[in-house]
This record gives sequence, structure tokens and C-alpha cells, in this order.
Amino acid sequence: MLKGKMVIGQSGGPTAVINQSLVGAVLAARKQEAITGILGARHGIKGIMEEKFIDLTTQSEAQLEEVAHTPAAALGSVRLKPGKAECEKVFEVFRKNDVRFFFYIGGNDSAETAHIIAEMAKEANYDFCTVHIPKTIDNDLKVTDHCPGFASAARFVALAFMGDDRDNRALSGVKINVVMGRHAGFLTAASALARQNEGDGPHLIYLPERDFDVEAFVGDVDRVFTQHGRCLVAVSEGIHDSAGNAIGATKEVDSHGNVQLSGSGALGDRLAAMVKERLGSKLRVRADTFGYLQRSFADCVSEVDAREAREVGRTAVRVATAGDRPHGSIVMLRDAGEDYSVRFEATELKNVAKATRDLPDAYLAGANDVAPAFLDYVRPLVGTMPAPTRLSDFPVA
Amino acid sequence: MLKGKMVIGQSGGPTAVINQSLVGAVLAARKQEAITGILGARHGIKGIMEEKFIDLTTQSEAQLEEVAHTPAAALGSVRLKPGKAECEKVFEVFRKNDVRFFFYIGGNDSAETAHIIAEMAKEANYDFCTVHIPKTIDNDLKVTDHCPGFASAARFVALAFMGDDRDNRALSGVKINVVMGRHAGFLTAASALARQNEGDGPHLIYLPERDFDVEAFVGDVDRVFTQHGRCLVAVSEGIHDSAGNAIGATKEVDSHGNVQLSGSGALGDRLAAMVKERLGSKLRVRADTFGYLQRSFADCVSEVDAREAREVGRTAVRVATAGDRPHGSIVMLRDAGEDYSVRFEATELKNVAKATRDLPDAYLAGANDVAPAFLDYVRPLVGTMPAPTRLSDFPVA
Repeated sequence: MLKGKMVIGQSGGPTAVINQSLVGAVLAARKQEAITGILGARHGIKGIMEEKFIDLTTQSEAQLEEVAHTPAAALGSVRLKPGKAECEKVFEVFRKNDVRFFFYIGGNDSAETAHIIAEMAKEANYDFCTVHIPKTIDNDLKVTDHCPGFASAARFVALAFMGDDRDNRALSGVKINVVMGRHAGFLTAASALARQNEGDGPHLIYLPERDFDVEAFVGDVDRVFTQHGRCLVAVSEGIHDSAGNAIGATKEVDSHGNVQLSGSGALGDRLAAMVKERLGSKLRVRADTFGYLQRSFADCVSEVDAREAREVGRTAVRVATAGDRPHGSIVMLRDAGEDYSVRFEATELKNVAKATRDLPDAYLAGANDVAPAFLDYVRPLVGTMPAPTRLSDFPVA
Repeated sequence: MLKGKMVIGQSGGPTAVINQSLVGAVLAARKQEAITGILGARHGIKGIMEEKFIDLTTQSEAQLEEVAHTPAAALGSVRLKPGKAECEKVFEVFRKNDVRFFFYIGGNDSAETAHIIAEMAKEANYDFCTVHIPKTIDNDLKVTDHCPGFASAARFVALAFMGDDRDNRALSGVKINVVMGRHAGFLTAASALARQNEGDGPHLIYLPERDFDVEAFVGDVDRVFTQHGRCLVAVSEGIHDSAGNAIGATKEVDSHGNVQLSGSGALGDRLAAMVKERLGSKLRVRADTFGYLQRSFADCVSEVDAREAREVGRTAVRVATAGDRPHGSIVMLRDAGEDYSVRFEATELKNVAKATRDLPDAYLAGANDVAPAFLDYVRPLVGTMPAPTRLSDFPVA
């Protein structure tokens, strides 16, 4: 039986529940004889390469429970898509320290990193097990029904739109809100959960799964404004024209070589300016970019998300120590039936590495809305929503 | 004794608890024989001039309770600072409909409107009582210890910074967050509530009560980044240079003639660009503008704020029907002593109308921080905060 130390790391954009997965894995690992020591890597594989570890074997359980309820990666995170040389360095550190288990919490890039290192171990005949623990607010991993971190971010987006819709109703105008999600529209689509009554916004939802056409957009806003006297718009930061050019592109790129979309108000301001230019400068047009708040707001956590994030961490350790599968990525598979439930299983790393998935066509409605099927999908994940209520329009006698 | 109908309206930027004040006043008014009918004005004095009222006498109490928990002005709001002709129109509508009580929920501009109409009634010998019910997330009204609406917005800002500080710790860089508050820095100052442990951000807080100097700002950021390897900055949207020019000014003005500061990412993006330009383009610098979320987020309400907002509404009706004071503005006066409590009283309209107050000097520390006295002031208002926890940096054996 495989026996040795484990390393666990966190990667990519933080979420509100990423520490649940960390704590779930650490507490489960403490019960396993096969795991002889628990090393937390500072800032993901960057920390591994530099041998910056902290001892997670001895942290108190009470403290770990508090960490589990703290948003954003407690070990520190990293945006680094390692090349071959970097993966070799990681593998060398593992061998040197008799590390036999590697758990990497992150998105598809992290799964890819885990996959490369797993292949190196196989080639070197080094007994080793690596398990990817899924995490991403974008919800764009393959195989799994949804990703830990998504539901809490979706809850934030839905609550933000719910309040902002009432704000827009109180002081009429056109309001554009930009939501995270580079390639997949799941998070922006969750804005639709804010609708509770006839006429509620968001009235228009633009997702990266559809080409964005400026003329059509302005026409849509004009039509909604004429009908409702106001217009609330949800826009994904990842919208692009038919040639694939990002509407919100700035000159910044991150270390993955991706164009910077978040952390700037440029897209929202650009769209607001377009609406004003076409529909009249007197129109009250405002834009907000939800930015980093949607992934790390303290005190906006879906209970389902927290529970599931904990369980994927636990499952990773169970899978790794069961011995029948050397490597894998943890997935949640939704059971059929009325009541929501999921099974926690593992799939091969190659099924999750690299590629991502978009919002399925069945979840989209036309060019600017989501389908009821999406709401059925997302509702059980975000938890109970408040029920905003209007005054009745009773005439005065 | 004064007897007749009442009109109630809501004005200015919505808050998370403005409907608590509405419902507090309406439910209290139903118990008063002196009040023979309750008219809700659609969109404040705009609705009064157009005689757009809804009957609030007959809305069910259960429904009103739900409305009380719904963010943003349920009657609709307005940004209109009326001139003399408009106030005369309002007064004419009141006379025509035998309106004897007027309750206006809003900031200092609303108090001023109420004051003008009260003076007109006095001049015309029309028996009439108008009471201003305070509301503003800016917390900038005179006399009152604090304003309903502020504490919930402050809670949002503090929670946002708390999460974002962990995010900034996980993925290091310079992060600039722009907070609402045109003239008064109370809301931006509340970001300091996010600090729970040594080294927590925000590390720098810039308020409109101090002139903003670009050189000093960049120097501050450089110093903090060198010390902590990261820097989280809170900036008020109202910061200005020593000549009074807003750093975040755009070309937009609202109907009060105020320059538009919210609903655009311009200030944050400008500050981020400055930091990059001076400290190096490789530095990871991001900016978020909290925008309208901070005043209307569904599900982020301070319990103290909700309770007090309800009570100022009730108090307004009590004051108006007591008969010993024809007009006034409701204020909350904090009792001395360790345990937090306030008394609800009325002051003359002229004490609240027009002028606003800044963050007192005693609440400021140097050019870029708040003093402990401010934290003592704000802590009882926002409610219990989460306690984010770090992992202990235990070395690996």
C-alpha cells in the first residue's frame, strides 16, 4: 500500500468555500495511516518549487474549522501554468521529501498540472497518487455537475441583482452590471435568480456563449426601456464579437497569457457610453462591475456549496487512499429525481484537464436570456433567496 | 387638534432599510385618529406634483412587513431639488386634498424641501405638520448621531473588504476599492472594520475630509507594498485635490447639479493606472468600484439599522400627532455609557436642512487612516462581524 507524506495546495482565483475543501482533505487525511505527514504548499506549485510548506498535521481542529469558514485561499494561491521544467522541479521536490500524495485544489489548469506530474511519476516508476479537487466560480469544469465555489458566487450575483433591480425601479434608468466568467456564462446567468415578480430584472442577459452585437444590444435596451421605463442588464465580462474579440479587453495580460477582464471598470463604462451615444445623453445610464467581491465576499456563502466543498476534499483523500485508482479528479454527479442530491466520485485527470465546458445550449434562450432549465439547475445550489415584495398599487379614493 | 390626511414619500438614493421607516410610519399612523388617510407618493415630490398616490391605509400588514425587509424605496424615489415654484405646486396639492401631515424620508435635501413647504404653510396660515425622516448611507446629516441606512451599507463595505483582504493575501498585488460618499468619509472609513489581525487591510484609507495628493498616494502604496508584499486601499469616490477638484470627476451631472461619481469605474481605473505608471507595469494592480451594491444588496442588513430605521418612522408619527411641535426632523441621540443605546427625538428642520457634516477630525488619523474613536463609534451599528482566521505558520520538521 502507498504510504508517505501528502502535499496540498490551492491555485487560481479564490472562492468563498475553497478553504472548506482544504480542511475537508486535511481532517480526512489525519485519519489515514497511509498519510504520514500533511504539508500545505504556500501559493500552490510556486511554494512547492521553493519548498515553502507549513505543517498542517498539527493545526488545531477548532482553528481549522474557523479557517474553513474564511473566504479566499488560506494557503495562498497562484496564477501559474507551469511548463515542463517547472513540473519537473515540483516532482523532484516530491521525491526528495518522500511525498506520495498530492492534492491540488483548483480549476482545469490545476487539473492539467496534476496530470503532467502524474505522468512524470508513472514514467519514473515512482509510486505516487495525485488527486485534483475541483474549484471555480466559473463552473466550467467538465464531467462534474457543478464546481465548488460556483454556488456561493452565484448567490452573491443573484442577491446583488435582486437589490439592484429594486434600486433601478426606485430611480429609473439603464443599469448595466458586469459579472465574472471569462469563457462560460454560468455566473452571469445566475443573475436570473433575482427575478421574482413580473417585470423584474435583469431584463437582458448577455453571455460569452453567444456573439455580442453592439447594434442588437442597443436595440434590446431601447425596447426594454420603452416597455418598462427602465432596463437592468447582466453582462458577462467575457462577451466578444463574432470574430472572437473581447468587448472588454484591456492591454493587461496575466501570467497565463489571458487578457485581463476583471479588476477594471472598462467594459461596463464602454457599454454605458454606447447606450448614451445611441439612445440619448439625457438617459440615466450607470454601470457597475461586480469584480472580486463576487468570489470572496465574507458572509455570502451557499450552505450547499460549503457542504459540498468540504465533501470533495474528504472524497479526494478517500479516493487516494483506497488504492484502486492512482490519480483522478473529484466530480459531483447529480442524482435524478425531484429532490436535489449528488454523488461524489472520481474521474480520470485527462477528462478534466485543459478543456472547459460552456453553458449548454439547453440553458440559453435566444440571444439575451436563460432558459427555465437553467433555473432548475441552479436553484438547488444557491439556497433560499429572500422574497422581495412590492406595495400594491391601490388607488386613492 | 390637527386632523387630516397624511402624505409620505421617499427621496434620494435608496438604502437597504428605507422601507423599514416607511412601514414604521404607516403602521403607527394607522393607530392615530388624527390621521384620516395615508397616501404614498410615487417617486417623492415628483409624485405629489403629479398627484400620483397609492393608498397605504389598506395594504395588509403582512405585506407591509415583507416590504419592510425589501431593499430600495418601495414607493419609488426621486433626485429632485425643487425650486420655489415646485414647492408651491406641492403645497397646492396638499391644500386641495386636505393633507395635514407630510412625512419625507431622505437626506438633507429632503429636509430642505420639507422646510420650505413648512414655511409656506405657516405663511398661508394653513394648519399643517411636516416631519423629515432621516435616511442616507453617507451618514452626513447634522444633529443625529448617525443616519438610518448607513449601518447596513457600512456592514456591506466592511464585509467586502474583509473578503477582499483575504483575496489580496492569497494573490498578492495592489488592490484599490472605491467606496460611495460624495462629501463625507463615514462609509469609506467603515472599511477599517475589516481588520481583525496584524497586517490585515485596508492598509490605506483615503477620505474626502483630506485633500488627496497623487504623489503622496503613490508613495504610501509603495511603502505598504514593500512592507507587506501587498496593499489594499480604500478610497472614497469623493476624494479631491487641494483645489477641490474631484479626482474621479466625469462629465455627467445629476439633476441636483452634482457631478456623477457613482455608476462608473473611472476613478478606480485612474488610480490603478497611476500606481502602475509610477511603480512598474509588472505590478499586479486591480481596482473595484463597489457602486450601487453597497446601498441595496439584498440580504446584507444590520439588525440595529433595521430596528432604528423602523423606529424613526414611528417616532415621526408620534412627534407629528403629539401636537407640541409643528415640524421637525427625527434624530437619534446616543446615550453615554458602555452599552450602546439611542434616544429618538426631534430637532427643528432648519438644523438639518441644507448643510451636512463631515467625519469629525477626532475620527481621522493622519492622511490615510481612521482613529480608534471611529471604530468605537461604528462597531455597535454594524452588528457582529465574521472572524476570519489564518492558518498558523507551523514549520515543517
